[in-house]
This record gives sequence, C-alpha cells and structure tokens, in this order.
Amino acid sequence: MNYETSSAEFRKLCRQGEWLKPTPGLASGYVQANLIVLPKSVAFEFLLFCTRNPKPCPLLDVTEAGDPEPRIVAPGADIRTDLPKYRVFSHGQLVEEVTNITHLWRDDFVAFITGCSFSFEFALLTADVPVRHIEENKNVPMYKTNINCQSAGIFSGPLVVSMRPLSSNNAIRAVQITGRYSKAHGTPIHLGNPQQIGISDINAPDFGDAVTIKEDEIPVFWACGVTAQAALLQAKPEIAIAHAPGHMFVTDIKDESLAND
Amino acid sequence: MNYETSSAEFRKLCRQGEWLKPTPGLASGYVQANLIVLPKSVAFEFLLFCTRNPKPCPLLDVTEAGDPEPRIVAPGADIRTDLPKYRVFSHGQLVEEVTNITHLWRDDFVAFITGCSFSFEFALLTADVPVRHIEENKNVPMYKTNINCQSAGIFSGPLVVSMRPLSSNNAIRAVQITGRYSKAHGTPIHLGNPQQIGISDINAPDFGDAVTIKEDEIPVFWACGVTAQAALLQAKPEIAIAHAPGHMFVTDIKDESLAND
Repeated sequence: MNYETSSAEFRKLCRQGEWLKPTPGLASGYVQANLIVLPKSVAFEFLLFCTRNPKPCPLLDVTEAGDPEPRIVAPGADIRTDLPKYRVFSHGQLVEEVTNITHLWRDDFVAFITGCSFSFEFALLTADVPVRHIEENKNVPMYKTNINCQSAGIFSGPLVVSMRPLSSNNAIRAVQITGRYSKAHGTPIHLGNPQQIGISDINAPDFGDAVTIKEDEIPVFWACGVTAQAALLQAKPEIAIAHAPGHMFVTDIKDESLAND
Repeated sequence: MNYETSSAEFRKLCRQGEWLKPTPGLASGYVQANLIVLPKSVAFEFLLFCTRNPKPCPLLDVTEAGDPEPRIVAPGADIRTDLPKYRVFSHGQLVEEVTNITHLWRDDFVAFITGCSFSFEFALLTADVPVRHIEENKNVPMYKTNINCQSAGIFSGPLVVSMRPLSSNNAIRAVQITGRYSKAHGTPIHLGNPQQIGISDINAPDFGDAVTIKEDEIPVFWACGVTAQAALLQAKPEIAIAHAPGHMFVTDIKDESLAND
C-alpha cells in the first residue's frame, strides 16, 4: 500500500475488509485517533472523565447517541466499519476482536474519538528529535503511575504514561514542540526520576516494549491514551468497544491542525 | 473592600449576603468564571456543546449531578451561595434574579464553570496592552456573528464575540498573549473587517456598550461566554440557572495557571 494514501482511501480499504493490520505510518500527516464506544447511560460520566483528564484523554470528536458518523474529524466516515480491528468488552472483560461492529451497533451508542501520540511524534521527527521505539522498531513503552486521574462517576484509575528517552537538549526541545499539541497529550507530565511517579523498573513497562536508554539520556514521560482503557476496565460498563491496540481510526484532519491556537 | 482579598474571603462575603455587586477587579489574580446549572437530562448534550465549541465555552470544572462543590477550581466552595447574583430561566425565559439558589437546588443539577475574558484581559494589561472598555469604564461590547456554533443535541446558536480595538502592533501582541490562554477564549477569532463575520454596525453592539475606536486601530474579536447563554435561550430547557451578567464565580485558581501546557 502507498503510505501517501489519503485518509478516506485508507478508511475505504478498512470498510471493504481489505486492511486488517496496525496503522502506524499510514496516511502520513493525518491525525490517527483512539476510539471508545459506550452506551449513553454512562456517556455523560465518561465525557466528564475526559474533560477532567485532558492530557491523557484529549477529545477530538464525540458523536451523538446512535450516530456512527464523526462529523467533526471525518465527515462521511462510519466508525462501525472504518477501523481495521475492534475490541469488544463486556463488564470490563475482553470478549472478542472483530473487524466490523455494524452487527453490535445500538441506537444509544456514543463514540469518543481522542488524540494519540502519533501526532506529536510526527512533530518530533519533523524537528529531528529522535524517537527511540521507532528507531528500534518496537511498540512504545507504557507504565502505570502512582498519579490518580480525576475521577468522574464510575470512571477512575491511574494515569498511564508513555516514555521516550532523550538527551537533555532534546528533552527541552521536546517540551516546546509537544506543548503545541495539547490535543495530542501536550507537554510531558514528568522527566527524570521514574520512581517519583511510581515506576520502580523502567526496563519492565506495563504495556509495550522496553527500549534502550543511553547513558546521557533521561526518560521523558507523556500522558497516554491507554489511561482511558484502564478506567474502562475498572468501571466495568455493561458494554464498551474500543480500537484494537495500534489499529487506530484515521481521521481527515492534519496533524498540524492540532497545534494550539 | 480590599481588592487584594482572597477568593475564599470574597466567596464568604457572598455566602453571608454581604456582597451583591459585580465582580470585575475583585480578588485580583484569581480566575473569575461563568456559571451555568442544568438538569442532568440535558447535561450530556450541553457538555458536548462546550466540548465542540471550546473557544466560547472553555470548561474549567463540571460538577457531578447533585454536587454543589466545584472540587477542581474551588474545593470547599458552594456554587449555590458563593456568587453575588444569579438568573433563573424557565423554558428559556428569565423568571427571576436571586442572590442564593439553595432553595432551588435539585439532586439532578449539574454545574458548568467556564473561563471568561477577565483572565486574558489581566494578561493584556500586565503586558501594557490597553483595554478600551476598562479605560472608558464601560462594559465590553459584544456582537452576535454570522458564524454558527457546532450544535449538540438541543443546543445550537450563533457565536457571540467581544471586541477590543487595538493598534496593529498591539493586535499582533494580543494574538500571542491571549493564545497562551485557551481556557479563557484563546486567540481572537477575527480581526479587521466586522462585516466579514456579520456585524453591520460596530457602534451598535448586541450586548454591552460601544467603545471608541481610534483612527489607527482595528477591531479585534474574541469568542465570548455569552455564546453559551444564547444557546440556552434557544434550547429552552425546563430550568437553567446562570450567574447574573458581571456577577461571576471567583475561583481559587490563579489567572496564570490557565496558561497552556
């Protein structure tokens, strides 16, 4: 597949069942996003959770009950068919992975679309700040912290962070660069000592892969979208549907459009 | 009263019925905010409206149903008593002005607290950018535009803007300065020609007072919190309560803490 394909062309491949793989690097320049679908009965509380925790859960679009079209970030798209893979959770338990959720769709479903770190990694790479897990062809290392999210109704849980090791100079530049993208997690939440945020072994991430940290580098931590999934598992709603890890929703907006104004 | 009073001391005066006047300039440095109270039945849709229209409606805090304490921006405060004056709306009609809403409070009420332009005006004045309506001791001029908000459920309506005339140099500085405060309306939405956004007579604002525009100045327009009230009047919910104009909620957070990160 051509990596320079448009977002709409990519979603069409998904809709036709012709693309079932992860999305990193695809439709370059377009914002990729997390998807969470919940019944309206808990939608206010989850929207409140995102509002109170904007660094891990930056809202890009929220549909109205029953509407599968994300009218702000991808008019004409259908979130029931346009992702390569979905995970279905019942009372907080993963029950199946599917490539289409049309048969599960309900009139009371609300879809939440939130920003992801791919957008700020694009900005870092554009500025020649190296991103280690991309260099090492791994998944980004992610850790549960001892920082609690602001709870909202049934939703609560620890802040989950992703980590990128950087030289001191690049860490300073990365604060500036990612700070422009509050819709993609914004500035780091910590840099330096992992133990201060409850991470005892930097080489044993809770999710993803460990990466090399060079002698002159410090670990830099950003809020991570997995935070929302952790809150979902803890809240155990009757039903929830999310993108499968790495199989993101490709929107029609450009990474650069997320820059703060 | 001492203008250097703390936010908590000021709220105590309100609670005791000892302060019934407008709040501009009081408790200097503390964020003042808009208040809107709605029943939970329409809270999801109003939260969605704010989420989709962050420039006019930047969310600082949203309480859970029945909870009168804004735990994020003013722990220990009580939004039923801690503002000097409130307006009560029934089906979109103003029915009364009261100094306390304890007798009206219900278990299903949700309070929305949103940022206001006082915070960025504080930043402009600190940077020696003059603010005309303050110089002229008037209310800021506000206008309905031909720009529609993104609707959400029953909530829709025009974007309302406030206007400050500035020299070209100060207009450029004001873009930079207010851009740091996305939680207080952020960058302007327009500068230059009022007719481009549907304003036919700059000297006849829809709300507030007209101010002097000098020959070397251009009008600069920011999204305004009155947008939310316009959407409320149009939606006509069974009941809604808001701060009376100029009688804001004084929070415990500092203006500077609203700067983007």
